[in-house]
Amino acid sequence: MNYLFLLDNALGFALILAIILLTTKVLGLWLRKAGLPQVLGYIIAGILIGPAIFGEFCHFCIIGFEEAALSGKYFALFAVKNSNLLNAFSKIGVLLLMFSAGLETNLEELKNTGVTSLLIAVAGVVIPMALGFLISLPFNSIGLGTANIMKCVFIGTILTATSVAITVSVLKELGKFNTKLGTTIVSAAIIDDVIGIVVLSVVTGVAKTGQGAEQLSGFAAFKSTIYGTIIMIIAFFIVAISLGFLVSHIFHWLEKRRPSTHRLPVFSLVVCFGYSWLAEEIFGVADITGAFLAGVVLSTAHRASEYIDRKIEVNTYTLFAPVFFANIGISSITFAGIDGSIFLFAVLAVIMGLLGKIIGCGAVCKAFGYSFKESAIGGVGMMARGEVALIVTASVTSTALGANALGGEFMIMTVLLILVSSILTPVLLKTLYSKNKPQVESVDNINV
Amino acid sequence: MNYLFLLDNALGFALILAIILLTTKVLGLWLRKAGLPQVLGYIIAGILIGPAIFGEFCHFCIIGFEEAALSGKYFALFAVKNSNLLNAFSKIGVLLLMFSAGLETNLEELKNTGVTSLLIAVAGVVIPMALGFLISLPFNSIGLGTANIMKCVFIGTILTATSVAITVSVLKELGKFNTKLGTTIVSAAIIDDVIGIVVLSVVTGVAKTGQGAEQLSGFAAFKSTIYGTIIMIIAFFIVAISLGFLVSHIFHWLEKRRPSTHRLPVFSLVVCFGYSWLAEEIFGVADITGAFLAGVVLSTAHRASEYIDRKIEVNTYTLFAPVFFANIGISSITFAGIDGSIFLFAVLAVIMGLLGKIIGCGAVCKAFGYSFKESAIGGVGMMARGEVALIVTASVTSTALGANALGGEFMIMTVLLILVSSILTPVLLKTLYSKNKPQVESVDNINV
Repeated sequence: MNYLFLLDNALGFALILAIILLTTKVLGLWLRKAGLPQVLGYIIAGILIGPAIFGEFCHFCIIGFEEAALSGKYFALFAVKNSNLLNAFSKIGVLLLMFSAGLETNLEELKNTGVTSLLIAVAGVVIPMALGFLISLPFNSIGLGTANIMKCVFIGTILTATSVAITVSVLKELGKFNTKLGTTIVSAAIIDDVIGIVVLSVVTGVAKTGQGAEQLSGFAAFKSTIYGTIIMIIAFFIVAISLGFLVSHIFHWLEKRRPSTHRLPVFSLVVCFGYSWLAEEIFGVADITGAFLAGVVLSTAHRASEYIDRKIEVNTYTLFAPVFFANIGISSITFAGIDGSIFLFAVLAVIMGLLGKIIGCGAVCKAFGYSFKESAIGGVGMMARGEVALIVTASVTSTALGANALGGEFMIMTVLLILVSSILTPVLLKTLYSKNKPQVESVDNINV
Repeated sequence: MNYLFLLDNALGFALILAIILLTTKVLGLWLRKAGLPQVLGYIIAGILIGPAIFGEFCHFCIIGFEEAALSGKYFALFAVKNSNLLNAFSKIGVLLLMFSAGLETNLEELKNTGVTSLLIAVAGVVIPMALGFLISLPFNSIGLGTANIMKCVFIGTILTATSVAITVSVLKELGKFNTKLGTTIVSAAIIDDVIGIVVLSVVTGVAKTGQGAEQLSGFAAFKSTIYGTIIMIIAFFIVAISLGFLVSHIFHWLEKRRPSTHRLPVFSLVVCFGYSWLAEEIFGVADITGAFLAGVVLSTAHRASEYIDRKIEVNTYTLFAPVFFANIGISSITFAGIDGSIFLFAVLAVIMGLLGKIIGCGAVCKAFGYSFKESAIGGVGMMARGEVALIVTASVTSTALGANALGGEFMIMTVLLILVSSILTPVLLKTLYSKNKPQVESVDNINV
């Protein structure tokens, strides 16, 4: 017997949830106290309770998998018989997270944001992506480089997602949130999400082409070609947006009849899950694209979308999101494959990810007449990464991508990127804003 | 190909959720408009989209199971590969429902309710249970009666659970909620829940004894004896309540530090799932007992328990409860086995269930000096059934009970009981309250 309890039924799964919720929340709160994002705590909790580190080095873990335990790989306190349930919960978690991100995209507000924000967003996607791609090319030894160009593209894609939450809280703290630069950054970050999801859809779509194509015929074979993939992506956006007008009308009507009732979040979940399935299973576009677009569609029903977001967030943050992030630590991260060259690569990629945003977004700010200091603030403000970077990494390490999928050892790069950017962003922002003040106060701010 | 889409992964499960949420909510809202409980709509939605009726008679269903579809039993629009995910969601749903019921048990208020409420509750459990048991005995032809005494006990157990929601809304509408009789009924209904869960724990615990006992040895063999079962039930309550003091202290402390933060519902879920697992897997007591007791424990942290209940209810009513009730319709109800004698039995059992409450609770009211009319109101007020009756039925039709489990065809009895009691309770209450008014108005009220 290489485990103490086998968790093989629905109730066993409830216990896994209990263990995950307890550990993620405790670690998440600790990290938040230290000024870091809670999600880092969630992932670290997953790494600690899962087999990634202790299972590998001390041959013991709290939550392990039956097969690995029986094969003598480690002793598990609780062995999971199969991870279907955990994966399903994670999937719902990531769909809800992207749905929420979509709901918070205010289309009308975006129409009014200028060309500056749009170009900052474009630069913030293109430059880090290019730098990430270029830095990957020499790393043939870890399976990147000429061995698989697609994997280099994935590394670039991971570096595109901005998370503006930290910047917003710093700007608010400094009283600079409602400045022209502040709103420009926030708008750019939202557009950045939209562009990022389109890039991810195209990239993963293309990566899937040719996977098992020899067994396909007719329409399925066409869908698996590169032209077919791109046509299906365009077709999905056309269908989703057309359908969106109908959905939006229905929600406007529901909202007028009963503004704050349970039916709104319930029907919104129907749209979220329906769009996700449609995207992935019918059009071959990533399901998270569907969930995000469902959110954007419902964001047009203003009052309702706020109410829906509030209710969906209760579902997400009390249950599904911790499971999604912990599951990254439990199931996806591998430390076994990490050696010197992967670590070196991760460090370089993080530097490219940070520089890409600072240079790309900063240059656009400068071109639009901002001062050098303001441009630096614009670049640094777009530099922070968070949940979406993890979600993107999880999609490009998905086994559905076959031979093109990145290995779990690259997750460490994303974790490092979030960690470093979360520490540097507030420090740099505060330093930049306090540049004109006396030196002593500036030093104080750095230590905050 | 006997199905159109095979839903075999996490995303397919998200689509099942979308279908369930859409149909349950639409039907639930229709039924609520007709003055009936929403849960009935949830179950009917499950019956309609699942294979229970159409699969049986027209050989078509919206959500079917792959195996049955492949065997040519019916054509399914969407075939579920395995129902693990559906069952896990349902399980979490029922645990959250019972947890919520526990949270709404105000122990301090119960201390102040008199002996009247306590005796009404006891009579409301004992009399319907006895009548249900007695009416089952002659029905040997449908597997009750002398064939399996345990099944007769289960029928009695199903009839015990009161749902006071309808009574409360009628009393409020008539302005009689804050009368002595009104509060007595509400207190009695809460105590009724507590007694009901103890009865259910003992009954299902005893039903499990001897199941596969020949393969067991040592402590496991002892646990499977009837003495062992009862000792384990008592041990569980002692452990759960002792642990409860600690848990309650922790939540009091959390509540003082940060009264309304996400951590409260998150940690409360840990307690709920932890207690459920402890109950079923360690002590052999029904998991819903654990969830209910977890709720009772946390109900002692007053302000926190209200906040927790509000957040948990969002989870429950936007996602998990519809899945639980729909899954009863999709997976548990069988119409294939329903013939004349089962239908006759169901009608008789419903009559016993209604009379049992009216006579039992009414007699106690009369004995405590209420007038005849008031006693009738007391009895009728305790007569309505709801979610808990379904939860109890789902537990006693569980396959974990082996040969003692009731068949899915008995679920129709519970559905009928909820339907009839939900229609009769408001009509009778209004008639009773309007007895002294002119005849014409009374007729009006009956038609309301």
